[in-house]
Amino acid sequence: MSEPIRVTVWNEFRHEQNHQAVKDLYPEGIHGTIKSCLEKQLGQNVLVRTATLDEPEHGLTDEVLEQTDVMTWWGHCAHGEVSDAIVDKVQKRVLQGMGLLVLHSGHYSKIFKRLMGTTCSLRWREQGERELIWNVNPGHPITDGLTDEHFELTDTEMYGEMFDIPAPDEQIFISWFEGGEVFRSGCTWTRGKGRIFYFRPGHETFPIYYNENVQRVIANGVKWANQNSSAPYRLNAPNITPSLAPIAGEYEVDASLHEH
Amino acid sequence: MSEPIRVTVWNEFRHEQNHQAVKDLYPEGIHGTIKSCLEKQLGQNVLVRTATLDEPEHGLTDEVLEQTDVMTWWGHCAHGEVSDAIVDKVQKRVLQGMGLLVLHSGHYSKIFKRLMGTTCSLRWREQGERELIWNVNPGHPITDGLTDEHFELTDTEMYGEMFDIPAPDEQIFISWFEGGEVFRSGCTWTRGKGRIFYFRPGHETFPIYYNENVQRVIANGVKWANQNSSAPYRLNAPNITPSLAPIAGEYEVDASLHEH
Amino acid sequence: MSEPIRVTVWNEFRHEQNHQAVKDLYPEGIHGTIKSCLEKQLGQNVLVRTATLDEPEHGLTDEVLEQTDVMTWWGHCAHGEVSDAIVDKVQKRVLQGMGLLVLHSGHYSKIFKRLMGTTCSLRWREQGERELIWNVNPGHPITDGLTDEHFELTDTEMYGEMFDIPAPDEQIFISWFEGGEVFRSGCTWTRGKGRIFYFRPGHETFPIYYNENVQRVIANGVKWANQNSSAPYRLNAPNITPSLAPIAGEYEVDASLHEH
Amino acid sequence: MSEPIRVTVWNEFRHEQNHQAVKDLYPEGIHGTIKSCLEKQLGQNVLVRTATLDEPEHGLTDEVLEQTDVMTWWGHCAHGEVSDAIVDKVQKRVLQGMGLLVLHSGHYSKIFKRLMGTTCSLRWREQGERELIWNVNPGHPITDGLTDEHFELTDTEMYGEMFDIPAPDEQIFISWFEGGEVFRSGCTWTRGKGRIFYFRPGHETFPIYYNENVQRVIANGVKWANQNSSAPYRLNAPNITPSLAPIAGEYEVDASLHEH
Repeated sequence: MSEPIRVTVWNEFRHEQNHQAVKDLYPEGIHGTIKSCLEKQLGQNVLVRTATLDEPEHGLTDEVLEQTDVMTWWGHCAHGEVSDAIVDKVQKRVLQGMGLLVLHSGHYSKIFKRLMGTTCSLRWREQGERELIWNVNPGHPITDGLTDEHFELTDTEMYGEMFDIPAPDEQIFISWFEGGEVFRSGCTWTRGKGRIFYFRPGHETFPIYYNENVQRVIANGVKWANQNSSAPYRLNAPNITPSLAPIAGEYEVDASLHEH
Repeated sequence: MSEPIRVTVWNEFRHEQNHQAVKDLYPEGIHGTIKSCLEKQLGQNVLVRTATLDEPEHGLTDEVLEQTDVMTWWGHCAHGEVSDAIVDKVQKRVLQGMGLLVLHSGHYSKIFKRLMGTTCSLRWREQGERELIWNVNPGHPITDGLTDEHFELTDTEMYGEMFDIPAPDEQIFISWFEGGEVFRSGCTWTRGKGRIFYFRPGHETFPIYYNENVQRVIANGVKWANQNSSAPYRLNAPNITPSLAPIAGEYEVDASLHEH
Repeated sequence: MSEPIRVTVWNEFRHEQNHQAVKDLYPEGIHGTIKSCLEKQLGQNVLVRTATLDEPEHGLTDEVLEQTDVMTWWGHCAHGEVSDAIVDKVQKRVLQGMGLLVLHSGHYSKIFKRLMGTTCSLRWREQGERELIWNVNPGHPITDGLTDEHFELTDTEMYGEMFDIPAPDEQIFISWFEGGEVFRSGCTWTRGKGRIFYFRPGHETFPIYYNENVQRVIANGVKWANQNSSAPYRLNAPNITPSLAPIAGEYEVDASLHEH
Repeated sequence: MSEPIRVTVWNEFRHEQNHQAVKDLYPEGIHGTIKSCLEKQLGQNVLVRTATLDEPEHGLTDEVLEQTDVMTWWGHCAHGEVSDAIVDKVQKRVLQGMGLLVLHSGHYSKIFKRLMGTTCSLRWREQGERELIWNVNPGHPITDGLTDEHFELTDTEMYGEMFDIPAPDEQIFISWFEGGEVFRSGCTWTRGKGRIFYFRPGHETFPIYYNENVQRVIANGVKWANQNSSAPYRLNAPNITPSLAPIAGEYEVDASLHEH
């Protein structure tokens, strides 16, 4: 049997302490709910820990990062308080192969903007409107278990285009909103060796993370982002001298070696 | 434990009967060697059968197709003898989610050209020259287990650019050849629900399919192509009348219904 | 000044002869309207001719094809009557660099399915509902001149996901429909040297092709699809013998030349 | 006649002052040579200015940035001296639609790494070895005017895979090197509204920028990167209240408005 996927669920964890409505909805924090979701969906195939903004190093020590296969990220009102040094480390781990699920308002997190290179801006509206999430990539393992061509969230915050992201490597979901907007709700990218999945649903006062389909997609996303290879990857730029070249000794080099 | 992947290894199987050198190299046929390779690499996780051109229906009856999760395809001198009706069926199965590995000279098979929409042409030369295959996507599960940034084949047929394919969804390998050419040697695409992996190495008189790295990549490719979802996919184009619309009854329709 | 773009507007031209409502809407045929649109938008930068199904060779003689830089394609009820031999020729011209705009119900044309390799299926409904077309790629020249993040069509046929196409090279537009569906309304691909733009809007009884924004996008699409290069492209697969290799005479070839 | 493209050629301009060999090769600086190249290739269609690291604000004042349609970037030994504030401004201009050509060792510039989100690392070797640059996208306007399937540089620095970049939106060139490496030498991406073209050739002591084919590609790249649209793009994330929604007043909003 394969080793369980080691997941770190990161959460800003501020709304749950400052707003009673959020506390009532997510008494163990959004991270607690996502942790439970993953344990319910993936059972012994997953080993989940949580980390939050106000812990030392935001709960993301070198040791935690080293032991994380996939990280999920939820933040909203305190993106600016995440330390750049920690973002550097998380980015490095993603490039080295750690999967990353960016959830909902995490689109504006430092780590997501860092990996995308764009503003990651969008339109938004909080009116508890209906969202229909269409599966445009039904062969993709992230959509496994969905039983219809779309699923519905009855009361959501709207996120609308133009969503300022690099063209996704894979488009998985597109959302329809009652007020007239559309949104690329499920997108994947690879950066370095790391797989990134942005998934739109989620909110602090709408009970999105209790939705069965949302839970399934997040669990699928964790499994997908954990797929990786043991092939070598390097962060640096080595000088491959002629003696190190793949066909060393078998090709002519210029007599006048140029110094760098 | 998950079910074994049901693989059908398809082979043209002509060279092995007509040329002694090929027969000596692949006494059980190229399909026999690929079957053994998969069984060695994947063990109980795979259930392999073979099918060849000269069997009835090329060995690809409805029942076989129905029971195939991933197909590998090798052909060379008799692409034109593959019946269009069988190609239709294989294409349909790919769209419905069957994985497809197209190997080496299979680039010119009817099924590959059908799925690509291009000529799939390339440059070639048979001189037993050196090939270095570079991994440009080290996080991709297809490259799992490779221990260096490239691997080598000492004596190969050259395939060179411009390779007339649609831009791959994922670029995995790029080859270097002794005579000066490069080639996109490992490419993936999705068509419908089906995952397609083209992998260049292979030949009837060079012992490519006994190479350890080639075997590993083919086994990885089978696992990758088997990843799919149970989400619904349809081949047809249904008329979604207002009563079938996602928000049926809640939106205004035009009074003057237009007949199609 | 650069040469005018030579456009051939192809139209099935059946509805306009068989249905009075269509005839009233498009008295010169849909092709006549698109021709006028292009001449209005692009003036002397364009030279437009038309061709229709019931002309000899569907109006697409070798001479016409040879003299066409960009073709637009509209068909609906008679896709099956387009001869395979003509489709072969059009495909070949696209691969050689002719641009192709596939409009609305042209998604089910032989030429589009041939180039895509998929069913090109979708959901549809004819209720004259509202469509909002969102620009998700505002830097793309196809969207030049659009003044808002979306534009509206008040009465349209609905096309919905899952649209069974290969992942587009570029996603330009995504549509929202009143009844709850979304659709990838503007997509581009390259096949061989040819640029393909699928653009959803259009219908035989809704006056879509008189819409200012639709006209602009079609004209932009023609300009975009005409961008090409004079670099060599070949349809065949040449044998590059050692004496023809880029570094001929400077690399070792295997002593035992393998015959194909 | 259309307006000339306003190009700013940016150069680090240190090697040319500190190394006699570089000074001899590029007496007017690499920027001077690229400026001349563009003026020769594009004539009145281009208006070129230059800017260098040691000028105030690196020569990239707000006014210069505002008046630049396409920027080319060459740097090598002093990437770290480019101010983050200027990088912020250049990134913003790219997102707003300024084209960017990143040349050779510019792969390690702050602006390129910022836009890519990866390390942009690679292998390298300076031995004046042979490079063959293969055109894998012959329909792309960046390759216009190339007369063969590849072109050659006789003495170059080697850059090899794995090149740590996001999967390019378009793959244009792939290089072959004498010592056994391959490299994705011509790649494009879009970020925001801006088009980015990375082009590998170039060096401070090899006379790459005098090569006819290199000059042609750079000029084509400038024309390509200048293609854009006037469609709106925003850097921020506006709250689209119900009264601002596309179908304002026609959809139901939840009674209990949630405050953000």
